[in-house]
Amino acid sequence: MLNKNIVSFLGCDAEYDEARVVLFGAPFDSTTSFRPGTRFAGPAIRGDSWGLETYSPYQDRDLTDCHIFDSGDLELAIGDSEKVLAVIEERAETILKDDKLPFLIGGEHLVTLGSIRAAARKYPDLHIIHLDAHTDLREDYLGVRLSHACVIRRCWEILGNGRIHQFGIRSGEKDEFEWAKSGHTSLHPFDLEGLEETVESLKGKPVYFTLDLDVLDPSVFPGTGTPEPGGIDYMTLQRAVIAVCQNVCLVGCDVNELCPPYDASGVSTAVACKIIREMLLAIGR
Amino acid sequence: MLNKNIVSFLGCDAEYDEARVVLFGAPFDSTTSFRPGTRFAGPAIRGDSWGLETYSPYQDRDLTDCHIFDSGDLELAIGDSEKVLAVIEERAETILKDDKLPFLIGGEHLVTLGSIRAAARKYPDLHIIHLDAHTDLREDYLGVRLSHACVIRRCWEILGNGRIHQFGIRSGEKDEFEWAKSGHTSLHPFDLEGLEETVESLKGKPVYFTLDLDVLDPSVFPGTGTPEPGGIDYMTLQRAVIAVCQNVCLVGCDVNELCPPYDASGVSTAVACKIIREMLLAIGR
Amino acid sequence: MLNKNIVSFLGCDAEYDEARVVLFGAPFDSTTSFRPGTRFAGPAIRGDSWGLETYSPYQDRDLTDCHIFDSGDLELAIGDSEKVLAVIEERAETILKDDKLPFLIGGEHLVTLGSIRAAARKYPDLHIIHLDAHTDLREDYLGVRLSHACVIRRCWEILGNGRIHQFGIRSGEKDEFEWAKSGHTSLHPFDLEGLEETVESLKGKPVYFTLDLDVLDPSVFPGTGTPEPGGIDYMTLQRAVIAVCQNVCLVGCDVNELCPPYDASGVSTAVACKIIREMLLAIGR
Amino acid sequence: MLNKNIVSFLGCDAEYDEARVVLFGAPFDSTTSFRPGTRFAGPAIRGDSWGLETYSPYQDRDLTDCHIFDSGDLELAIGDSEKVLAVIEERAETILKDDKLPFLIGGEHLVTLGSIRAAARKYPDLHIIHLDAHTDLREDYLGVRLSHACVIRRCWEILGNGRIHQFGIRSGEKDEFEWAKSGHTSLHPFDLEGLEETVESLKGKPVYFTLDLDVLDPSVFPGTGTPEPGGIDYMTLQRAVIAVCQNVCLVGCDVNELCPPYDASGVSTAVACKIIREMLLAIGR
Amino acid sequence: MLNKNIVSFLGCDAEYDEARVVLFGAPFDSTTSFRPGTRFAGPAIRGDSWGLETYSPYQDRDLTDCHIFDSGDLELAIGDSEKVLAVIEERAETILKDDKLPFLIGGEHLVTLGSIRAAARKYPDLHIIHLDAHTDLREDYLGVRLSHACVIRRCWEILGNGRIHQFGIRSGEKDEFEWAKSGHTSLHPFDLEGLEETVESLKGKPVYFTLDLDVLDPSVFPGTGTPEPGGIDYMTLQRAVIAVCQNVCLVGCDVNELCPPYDASGVSTAVACKIIREMLLAIGR
Amino acid sequence: MLNKNIVSFLGCDAEYDEARVVLFGAPFDSTTSFRPGTRFAGPAIRGDSWGLETYSPYQDRDLTDCHIFDSGDLELAIGDSEKVLAVIEERAETILKDDKLPFLIGGEHLVTLGSIRAAARKYPDLHIIHLDAHTDLREDYLGVRLSHACVIRRCWEILGNGRIHQFGIRSGEKDEFEWAKSGHTSLHPFDLEGLEETVESLKGKPVYFTLDLDVLDPSVFPGTGTPEPGGIDYMTLQRAVIAVCQNVCLVGCDVNELCPPYDASGVSTAVACKIIREMLLAIGR
Repeated sequence: MLNKNIVSFLGCDAEYDEARVVLFGAPFDSTTSFRPGTRFAGPAIRGDSWGLETYSPYQDRDLTDCHIFDSGDLELAIGDSEKVLAVIEERAETILKDDKLPFLIGGEHLVTLGSIRAAARKYPDLHIIHLDAHTDLREDYLGVRLSHACVIRRCWEILGNGRIHQFGIRSGEKDEFEWAKSGHTSLHPFDLEGLEETVESLKGKPVYFTLDLDVLDPSVFPGTGTPEPGGIDYMTLQRAVIAVCQNVCLVGCDVNELCPPYDASGVSTAVACKIIREMLLAIGR
Repeated sequence: MLNKNIVSFLGCDAEYDEARVVLFGAPFDSTTSFRPGTRFAGPAIRGDSWGLETYSPYQDRDLTDCHIFDSGDLELAIGDSEKVLAVIEERAETILKDDKLPFLIGGEHLVTLGSIRAAARKYPDLHIIHLDAHTDLREDYLGVRLSHACVIRRCWEILGNGRIHQFGIRSGEKDEFEWAKSGHTSLHPFDLEGLEETVESLKGKPVYFTLDLDVLDPSVFPGTGTPEPGGIDYMTLQRAVIAVCQNVCLVGCDVNELCPPYDASGVSTAVACKIIREMLLAIGR
Repeated sequence: MLNKNIVSFLGCDAEYDEARVVLFGAPFDSTTSFRPGTRFAGPAIRGDSWGLETYSPYQDRDLTDCHIFDSGDLELAIGDSEKVLAVIEERAETILKDDKLPFLIGGEHLVTLGSIRAAARKYPDLHIIHLDAHTDLREDYLGVRLSHACVIRRCWEILGNGRIHQFGIRSGEKDEFEWAKSGHTSLHPFDLEGLEETVESLKGKPVYFTLDLDVLDPSVFPGTGTPEPGGIDYMTLQRAVIAVCQNVCLVGCDVNELCPPYDASGVSTAVACKIIREMLLAIGR
Repeated sequence: MLNKNIVSFLGCDAEYDEARVVLFGAPFDSTTSFRPGTRFAGPAIRGDSWGLETYSPYQDRDLTDCHIFDSGDLELAIGDSEKVLAVIEERAETILKDDKLPFLIGGEHLVTLGSIRAAARKYPDLHIIHLDAHTDLREDYLGVRLSHACVIRRCWEILGNGRIHQFGIRSGEKDEFEWAKSGHTSLHPFDLEGLEETVESLKGKPVYFTLDLDVLDPSVFPGTGTPEPGGIDYMTLQRAVIAVCQNVCLVGCDVNELCPPYDASGVSTAVACKIIREMLLAIGR
Repeated sequence: MLNKNIVSFLGCDAEYDEARVVLFGAPFDSTTSFRPGTRFAGPAIRGDSWGLETYSPYQDRDLTDCHIFDSGDLELAIGDSEKVLAVIEERAETILKDDKLPFLIGGEHLVTLGSIRAAARKYPDLHIIHLDAHTDLREDYLGVRLSHACVIRRCWEILGNGRIHQFGIRSGEKDEFEWAKSGHTSLHPFDLEGLEETVESLKGKPVYFTLDLDVLDPSVFPGTGTPEPGGIDYMTLQRAVIAVCQNVCLVGCDVNELCPPYDASGVSTAVACKIIREMLLAIGR
Repeated sequence: MLNKNIVSFLGCDAEYDEARVVLFGAPFDSTTSFRPGTRFAGPAIRGDSWGLETYSPYQDRDLTDCHIFDSGDLELAIGDSEKVLAVIEERAETILKDDKLPFLIGGEHLVTLGSIRAAARKYPDLHIIHLDAHTDLREDYLGVRLSHACVIRRCWEILGNGRIHQFGIRSGEKDEFEWAKSGHTSLHPFDLEGLEETVESLKGKPVYFTLDLDVLDPSVFPGTGTPEPGGIDYMTLQRAVIAVCQNVCLVGCDVNELCPPYDASGVSTAVACKIIREMLLAIGR
C-alpha cells in the first residue's frame, strides 16, 4: 500500500494535533505594483528547503526536535483581494483557536492583513514588528486601498498608534515617512538599529512578526518584486529574526515577497528557506 | 531645443487628428490564473518593434503610408478589476467617438471586456471573432466573475447568442465546451478551420477582433501565462489576421497575453510585433 | 483539523485501492552524458499540471472520471545506478503485483530499465514500443554499461530479438544503427512511420511503452538534456500516444528526459503535462 | 607528458596538411543593429557539438571519415570593422591558396564580406547562394556602409548583377526588395522555392554558400540577434544545405548569426551544430 | 485628444527651458571587449525607474522638486565609433551652451569621450572624477584606439597630467598602473579611499564625474560586461556619489556600463536607477 | 600552416616540461545531491578567464611571469564514481611524479578524493586545508559512500585524526559537527577565523588545499549546486587563498563546485576565475 505524495517544508512532519506551529501559504500577488510572481513562493520554498539541513549550527538545534505542521498553500481567488483576505483570516483564526502559532508564507505583503485581522481579534493589545524596505503606509495606491503598498496602513487602522515597529525602511513617499513620524508608527529607517530595545520593551506583550524579505539588500535577495538597493545583509537578518522569535511573546508571523520568477539562480529561495528554518527553530525554544 | 522622449510602436507616428487607428495598452494581469506578467507587454512590444521593418513583403505595404497614433499604456489600478475595466472602456469610447479604430494591447485577456463594453454600445449588432487556445467561457473562476478565464462569457452577456465566433480553442472545462455548443457561441476547436466562411458571412456587420496569442503553439509563442501545446503555426495566424482585418468591417481589436517575463529569448515579443504590424497594414487597406 | 499538503498530478486523486494506474517519479540523472537536471521533472510536472484542464476536447474525456493514484517521487541514491534501479524495480513490481499499471515519470532514460525488469518478470513475452531521438543501443558509454545511452540495449538483453520497436530515431553511432538493423530491434528512423502497423501487430501482446520526450523537435521541447533537431511536432506525438495507449494491451509505461533547468519558458513542462494527461485518458478507456 | 587542451568541432581532428576543409571562427558583432552577442558563437558551437554524434543517419556518413581541420577563432579588433575584415580575408586567402575550402563560423553576417573578398579574387566568376530572413541589401545603415544590414550589397559591388541568389528572404526595406528585383540579385522571398533549379543552373561554376541561420523560424532558432517569424523549419533547411553542399562546386561557405546570449535553452546552438555537421558531411562526398 | 507616449526617467518631467539638468542616453557598445549589450541600458533604466519612489529618505528630497529634462536616447551609428562620438559631443555641447548640465547614460564607457570633448572645450581647466573597476588607460586595444578600454587615456590626451582622479580601480595591465603612477593620473586602487580629500581639493574647479558602475562588486551589480570581483558595496557608492554631486562644481556627468542582457533578476538596473536618482537629487541642491 | 585551437586558462601557456603548476579539470557531478551541472565548470572558467587581466594589482605579479600548463579536462565515465576517481588519481600522480603541483578544477567536491589519494601516497604526512560551507563528513548519503557529501570523511579515512582543517563551515548534520569536534577534524565554523594560526602551524608540512567555492556567500557566488546563505565575502576569500598558497608548503590544490547552469549572470564564473588567478600567482612566488 503506497502513500500519497505529501510535500512539506523540510522537517515539518508533525501531526496537526501535536504541532505548536502551523505553516500555511497564501499564493496571492494580484495587487503587486511592479513585478508579480510571489504566488509561486510556497511550492518553491517547500521544494528547495530540502537542499538545507534540519540542523542549525547557529542555534545548535534541529527541526526534527520541533513540532511543526505544514498545511500547504490555500486555494485563493486570484483577482479578488477581499475574498482572499477572508480565506487567510479564517485559516489564521482556526490555527489561533487551537492555540497554535500561524506561520504564513506569502505571497505579496497584503496577505499579512488576513493574519493580523485574526490575531488582533484574539489579542487586542497586539504589537507588530515589521521588517521591510518599504513603508507600506499609503492611504491608497491609484485608488486601491487593499494593496501591498498600503498593508501596514490597513493594520494601523486596526491597531492604532504606537503598536507598529518598523525597521529597515528605506523607500516610500515623503508623506508616508512624515505620517509615520507624527506618532502613528515607530519607524526606524535604513537598518535594524533599535530592534534590540524594541524587543526588550515588548516583553510580555503579544507580538506579530511580519518579515518582508526585501528588507535584505538585492545582492542577497534579488528574487523579489521591488528590489531596493541599500538593504541589510543575510547574517544581520538571521541574528534579528532569532532575537525576535526567541525573545518576544510571538503569536503569529509571516515571511513574504519571495518572487521565484525573478530568482533564476535560486539563491533568494535558499535565503527564504534558511530564514524560515532559523525562525522555526527559535520559536521552538 | 531638444524633444521629449516619445516611444511608439514602429512607424506609428501620426498625429491624433489624422490617425485612423489608435493604439493603447492596458498593463493589467491581476486575474491571471497561472503565470502573471502580461502587464509588461506594451513596453516590450514598443521597444522590440524597432527590430522589424516598416515594410511588409507579404502585403507589399509600408507602415509609413498608414496613419496610426500610439497613445501609450493606460495607468491602471492594479488589484481592482472593475476600476481597470472602466478606464479601458473610457479610452475605447473616446477613440470610437472620434470615429477611429481602438487597437488595444493587453495585458491579460480580461482587458477585452472594457473595449467590448464601449464597442457594443456604439454597435449593438457587434460580432466578435475570437482566436484563442482557451474557451474563456466560465461563469466564474473560484468565485471571481471578472477573470481572464471568464472574459468571453462576460462578452456573451452583453451580446447574446450567435455573436461570438471562436477559433483555435483546445482547452477548457467540459461544461464550457457544452455550453458553447448549445448555441451560445460558434466554437471551432483546435484550429482555424471555418474562419474564411465566418469572415465571408460577417461582411457588412461590425466586427471586433480579439486575438489571444496563446492560440499559437508554444513552440512559436512560449512567452505566455498558460502555454497550451497543439496550437497553430505562425504563418497560419498571419494569413488569418490579414484575412480578418482586410475583409470584415472592423470596429475594434486587441492583441493580448504576451507575458515578457517568460519570453527569455524574445521570440514571443517578435511574434507579437510582427502580427500587430500585419494587422495594422491590413486595416489600413 | 487541517490536512497535510498532498501534491499530485492534476486530477489524480484516487485512493490506491481503487486506482487502475499508479504514477511514480524517479528523480535520477547520474548517468546523463550531456546536460543533467531531469531529476527535477517530477515536481515540475506535478506543479505545472494545474495549468491544464482535466478535460480533453481531443478525446472528450475527463481525468475526474479516471482512477489514478500518484505516489510521488521515490527517494533515490544519487550516484549509485544499481541501487537506484533496484528501488525503481521494487516499486514497479509492487504496483504490478496489485494488478495496476505502473506509470513512471523520469528522470533520465536509464530509469526505464527498473520498470522493464519488473514488467518482464511478470510478462515474459513483453514487447516495448520506444519513441526517442536516440538509439540508446550502446554496449557501454566510456566503459559504463548502466547509462542512459545504453538503456535499450540493456532491455534487449532481457527481452531478446524482435521485441523492441523503435520510432523517431535520428541519432546514434553507426554501429548502433547497424546492430539494430541486423535483427536485434525494429528501428524506424526519423519519424513515426509504421507505428500504426506495429500497434496493430502487437494486439493481444503485453506492451510496455517508453517515451523519451526528446523524440519531439527541440522547438517543441527545448528542455531536455540532449536536444536533437529534426524531430516530430506536438500533434503527431499526441495522436501517437493516444493510439498506443488505447489500442495495445499496455502493462506499463514511462515518460522521461524532461530537464527543467533547461526549460526557462516552461513550455517543455507544459508539453510533458499534456502528453501525460492524454496518455492517462487513453489508458483509462 | 601531457597534451595541451585542443578544442575542435566534433570529429574535426585532421592535421592541416591532410585537411580538405578548414574551419575558422570570426567572433565579431560590432555592427549588429539589434541584439549583439554572435561573437560567442564559435566556442558555443565547438563545446556543444560534442552532444551530437559524428555519424549522420540521414547521409549515412561519419565525420571520422572526413578530413577537417579546425583552426579556432581569429583574434579580432572589436570596434574596427575594416581591420576585422582584413584579418578574415587574409585567413580565407591562406586556406584557398592551399586549395582547401574555408568554412567560416560567424559572428554577425558582415564577416562574410572578408571571405567573399578572398574567394572572388581566386574565382572571378563566383556565385553566391544566400539563405537569410533579411535582404541585407542596404546602401548603408545610419551612414555605416560596413554593416551586417549591408553585407550582400557590398558583395554585389564585387561580383555584379546576376551572381547572388537569395532565398528565404522575408524582411527588408521596400527599396531593397525593388533594387533586388530590378536585376541586381535573384531574390526568392519567404522560402526555399527555386533552390533546386538554382543549384542545377550553377553546376560547374564556383559557388560560395552563405547561411544566415535566421532564415529558420524563431521557434526553431530563437537564439539570434534579429528573430523574424515566418521562417522555414529545420528539416527543410537540412535538406537544402545537403543539396547545396553536395551538388555545386563549393569553394567556400559560412554559417552565421547564432547569438548564444539569447539561446538560454541551447537549442539554437544544437541546430547550428547539426547543420554544420550535415554540411561538412555533404562537402566531404 | 490623446497624448503621445512620453517615456522619461522617474520624475523627470520638466520642460527643456526650465530644466537645470538634461538626461540623454547613448545606446552604443560596439567596442565592448567581452560581453556586449549596454546599448539597452537607457530604456531599461527609464522603464524600471518607476519601481522607485521620487522621494529619497537619505537626502530628504524629492525629484518632483527638481527640474530635469529627459531627452531620451540618441540615434547612433552602430559600428562607427567616430561618428557616434561626434553625435554625443554635439548633444553635450548643445546642453552646455544652454547652461544646463549634461547627464549622459551609457552605453559602454567610450561614450564618455564625447561628453568630455564638449566639456573640455567650455572648461579648459576641467577635472575628471572617475569611479571604475578598470584603469581604461590603454594606448590601444588590439590596435583600436577608440575602445572602452582606452577611454580615460583618450581623455588624458585632452586634459593632460593631474586632471584625472581615479577610484576603485582593481583591474588593468601592469603598464597601465605604472603609467598612471608616473604622474599621469591620480589612481586610487581598490576602493574610494581619498575621495573625500579629492573632492575637497577640487572645490571651485569645474568637475566632470564619470561613473562606471562596475566599480561595484558583482554581487551588487552583476549585469555588466566585465564583472570584476572585489568591488565596493552599494551604500559606499551612494554616499560617494552624493558627496561628489553635492560638493564639487559639477559641469557634466555620466553613468555607464549597465548591460541589461546580463541582468536577469533586474537588480543591476534597480541599482543604476537608484544611484541616478540620488545623483539627480544631490545635483539639485 | 595554421595552428590547432588550444584553449587554456588565461596566461597559462607554458610547455609541460617547464611548468611548475599543472591545471586539469574533472567534469564530474554524478553524486551531486541537489542541483547538478558542475561538469561544465572547466570550459566556462577557461573561456571567461579572458575577461580578466594577467596582472594582479593586489599581488603586483603577472601570470605571464609564471610557468603554468593547462592540460584541459579529463574524459570521465559519467555515472561510475570509482572509475572517475581512478582517472583523477592517475592524472594527479603523473603530475606529482614529475615534481609539479596538480591544480584540479572540479566538478563536484568528490573529485578531491582522487587527488588526495595520489598526494597522500607521495606525502604520508599530508594535511588538508578545507574551505567550504558544508562539513562533507557523512559516513554515507542514502547508502552511497562515494558522494560529494562524504568526501572529507573519505579523506579522513586516508589521513586520520588531526590532519584536516576545516573553515567557513555552516551546514551539516548534528552528527557531523559532533564527529568533527570529537577530535577527528579541526572544524572552524561560519568563517575563516583561525586560518592564519593554522597556516602558521603547518609551516614545513605538506599541505593540500581544497576550496569549495560555496564557502562564499550566495550573493557573491550564486552559481553553485547547494547555495548556503551566511558565507564570507569575496575579499575575505581572496586574502585567505593568497595567505594559504604563499605561506604553506603546497603540494596540490583544487577549486570546485562552480555550477554554470545556475550562473546566468556569469559573476560566479568571474569569481572562480579571479580566485584561481590569485592562487596561481601566490603559488608562483
